[in-house]
Amino acid sequence: MNHAIIRNLIGKILILVAILMILPVIVSIIYTIKGEDNINDIISFLVPMVSMLLVGGLLNIKKAKDTSMKAKEGFVIVALSWIVMSLFGCLPFIISGKIPNFFDAFFEIASGFTTTGSSILDDVSIETMGHSILFWRSFSHWIGGMGILVFILAIIPESKDGSAVHILRAESPGPTVDKIATKTRVTTRILYIIYIVLTVTEILFLFLGPDKKMDFFNSVIYSLGTAGTGGFGIDNFDGVAVVFGQYTHYTQYVVAVFMLIFSINFTIYYLILIGKFKDVIKNEEFRWFFVIVIIAVGLLILNIYKICNTFEEAFRYSLFTTATIISTTGYANVDHTLWPTTAKLIVCALMVIGGCAGSTAGGIKVTRLVILVKSSLKKIGKMLNPNKVEILMVDGKPVDDSTTEAVQSYFIIYVLIFIICGLVVSTGTNHGEEIDMVTAISASLTCINNVGPGLTQIIGPVGSFSGFTWYVKLLLSLEMIAGRLELFPVIILFNPKTWLRS
Amino acid sequence: MNHAIIRNLIGKILILVAILMILPVIVSIIYTIKGEDNINDIISFLVPMVSMLLVGGLLNIKKAKDTSMKAKEGFVIVALSWIVMSLFGCLPFIISGKIPNFFDAFFEIASGFTTTGSSILDDVSIETMGHSILFWRSFSHWIGGMGILVFILAIIPESKDGSAVHILRAESPGPTVDKIATKTRVTTRILYIIYIVLTVTEILFLFLGPDKKMDFFNSVIYSLGTAGTGGFGIDNFDGVAVVFGQYTHYTQYVVAVFMLIFSINFTIYYLILIGKFKDVIKNEEFRWFFVIVIIAVGLLILNIYKICNTFEEAFRYSLFTTATIISTTGYANVDHTLWPTTAKLIVCALMVIGGCAGSTAGGIKVTRLVILVKSSLKKIGKMLNPNKVEILMVDGKPVDDSTTEAVQSYFIIYVLIFIICGLVVSTGTNHGEEIDMVTAISASLTCINNVGPGLTQIIGPVGSFSGFTWYVKLLLSLEMIAGRLELFPVIILFNPKTWLRS
Repeated sequence: MNHAIIRNLIGKILILVAILMILPVIVSIIYTIKGEDNINDIISFLVPMVSMLLVGGLLNIKKAKDTSMKAKEGFVIVALSWIVMSLFGCLPFIISGKIPNFFDAFFEIASGFTTTGSSILDDVSIETMGHSILFWRSFSHWIGGMGILVFILAIIPESKDGSAVHILRAESPGPTVDKIATKTRVTTRILYIIYIVLTVTEILFLFLGPDKKMDFFNSVIYSLGTAGTGGFGIDNFDGVAVVFGQYTHYTQYVVAVFMLIFSINFTIYYLILIGKFKDVIKNEEFRWFFVIVIIAVGLLILNIYKICNTFEEAFRYSLFTTATIISTTGYANVDHTLWPTTAKLIVCALMVIGGCAGSTAGGIKVTRLVILVKSSLKKIGKMLNPNKVEILMVDGKPVDDSTTEAVQSYFIIYVLIFIICGLVVSTGTNHGEEIDMVTAISASLTCINNVGPGLTQIIGPVGSFSGFTWYVKLLLSLEMIAGRLELFPVIILFNPKTWLRS
Repeated sequence: MNHAIIRNLIGKILILVAILMILPVIVSIIYTIKGEDNINDIISFLVPMVSMLLVGGLLNIKKAKDTSMKAKEGFVIVALSWIVMSLFGCLPFIISGKIPNFFDAFFEIASGFTTTGSSILDDVSIETMGHSILFWRSFSHWIGGMGILVFILAIIPESKDGSAVHILRAESPGPTVDKIATKTRVTTRILYIIYIVLTVTEILFLFLGPDKKMDFFNSVIYSLGTAGTGGFGIDNFDGVAVVFGQYTHYTQYVVAVFMLIFSINFTIYYLILIGKFKDVIKNEEFRWFFVIVIIAVGLLILNIYKICNTFEEAFRYSLFTTATIISTTGYANVDHTLWPTTAKLIVCALMVIGGCAGSTAGGIKVTRLVILVKSSLKKIGKMLNPNKVEILMVDGKPVDDSTTEAVQSYFIIYVLIFIICGLVVSTGTNHGEEIDMVTAISASLTCINNVGPGLTQIIGPVGSFSGFTWYVKLLLSLEMIAGRLELFPVIILFNPKTWLRS
């Protein structure tokens, strides 16, 4: 184990997060001048910034002589830095006194970075927050969406042996990583440029649209939330937290479309940019994603049609809900916990599926689903004709056994973690009362998939996670991080074998 | 595809089922003489017996010239014969007028043969049943427990190439089949002898025990239900369907122990018989099974202790419930749907796990769980040290990749079927009302795992499946058969590719 490189990189992460906190500080200054925010909010950011710069600097005093790393280091660095940055990232909430409890603050920032969007805030607490705190909360979605280490890789010099790809692999969603360029650094830069351009496009669409409630601040906040597929809301319309139901239809459609856009592998946009349309069409995950979206929207319309006023309403609710759940964003224009059972189960299935690999979305990813289904069908074919040699093909290319095994193991571990966490959640309480089965299970499901709302009123689009016992909040925070990093890094971090023999 | 051998074997199954119906006919004669039953019940059996003999005879007029078969034929024969025998097996219910609706009757006998034990009967209907009908219902558990084709294999001459093993493989629970003897016929005979001896032992324990309510008929009925790990009850104590709560503690402990006994691989008993105790201890599944049972009992006691009167009561409820659920029997001495959420989720987990391979229990089986967990750990190890060659070992022997792949594919298909069926169940109604999420999901779960009761009052130990829409009952019947035959045979039967090119 190359301890020096782990230390150095985590130090760099801390310095980077400190630098990123300049943005909420600017927001704070603007709104303090405007007289809407309190000057104290700036201090809530300055204290953690100074601490991170100090610790980050200390961790970088002794430079690693050997900058190469193995897969193991990649996993450990990624898992550790997500935990460390959540520990520092929650300080502004605590210092400002807006979320004084550590477990609440840690949950909130973990939910932010992992782009989950589950919140321990209720509508009343949101109202008391300053702009800078709300901005930091939603900005954390944007940082976590593409990945903080991917960002580091885009700016720091690369080691000669190209081993930085291990970090890219460990932090990027999906079973494999498409390297657009030979150099990891170039790849990550292209990805970040696409990310920034798409985010800015959404801000413009929202701000320049006809919605009067969508001022510049709100446009930025909701675009950051959409881009990271996070889902923190900041609005409080008379206690109705189903935010988008209060905006115009234009806004709802724009956000729905952008949620889908951010659930697609970013490589697709690169291929479109360089004119390789054929490769776009050939991408199986991309096609499956749209087939699933169309089927889900159709089924949801069938299920909720009778409880809607018009077909347009049923369509809008179904499209928005499908987009928000499959993208694992978690915004809502309707409270799906009040829907019929079948509709709720469809929502449940979409949570598990999630978006495409290489996007900012969570879930097990469409490509894993495709590989899981295909490998099982292949096994059935093998049972019928034991001598037939069949090769698993995705995108017209063979998938090697190692990838298939990794995907199958991923699915098994995913189910185990989801069940064990659900079991532990059920031992806790919500505001002192027993947690029911659907709440416990859907809390675990929504956190491991980084979606946000659960399937009951308590933790649905109108509810919050505030009433849960402290250890349930801590567990769900770790489950969110495990889900965002796709399980392996966190498991490897907590595996004693990782630390035996350096 | 060897159509002739499929025809012949299904014909033989029908003749065998007709012969097995002699037993309920005898029961009917005895209780008609006693004046407790109606003579008409005999006719309800004679009509299907004659039909089965006729159809069975017709299917055997033209003998197959080639008696060899491939894996494909094995799967198709097993899946087809389970559907055909359920179609004929439900006739006594319909003709006697006790269960006049076809979908109800088919559900009931499918639940019987598959050893599920879910019932569409409520307490009132059970009271109106004759002894012969009740006997047939519970006898179907015993027949289905070990497998009807395994029985056929025990009595018919074997083809020289030993291809009958394909049938044994397709019908026996578990990823692999231990052939005790070289000849399939000898293996199946030994298994059936163990099965009969254990069943008779339980009858004696119950009948000769101190429980006055446990007369000879009840002892037989409950032993058949335990042996097959089925779970149909026949008692009605003032409408309390949680049957075993009404029997003495002695009876409850005896049944709990026998439920566990029938969840263990029968090869273990053979090994004990021939004195190979070392091999018994070496059996990993056996050890894991007991570890899981002990952990589950312990966790349940912790969870229900405060709602019980004494520690003995908490222990008895926890032991019985663990035994009944992990063995997938479905008897109850307490209504677990009233337990705390955590206890219900533990019940849920036990349903999925099920018993050992080569037993009469359902679920995914302990050995599959062991392989799933080990293969995933192996994959994580591989991620840490890509060059390390690690071999998956079970029982101190390496598990070949093909078995691991089959187990992983099995799990994926299992999850997919379970979710899709749950989704379809949710579209139906229960007595005209919407089916809630836990009922829909647990109905699918209890049927695919052949357990019996679900996790809500509606379908719990005190409830019944009678109120569900017809197509939900049909789907759940097929899901029970798919679960009992471990998915592949039913999937292969309904796969168009199976029928292309004979």
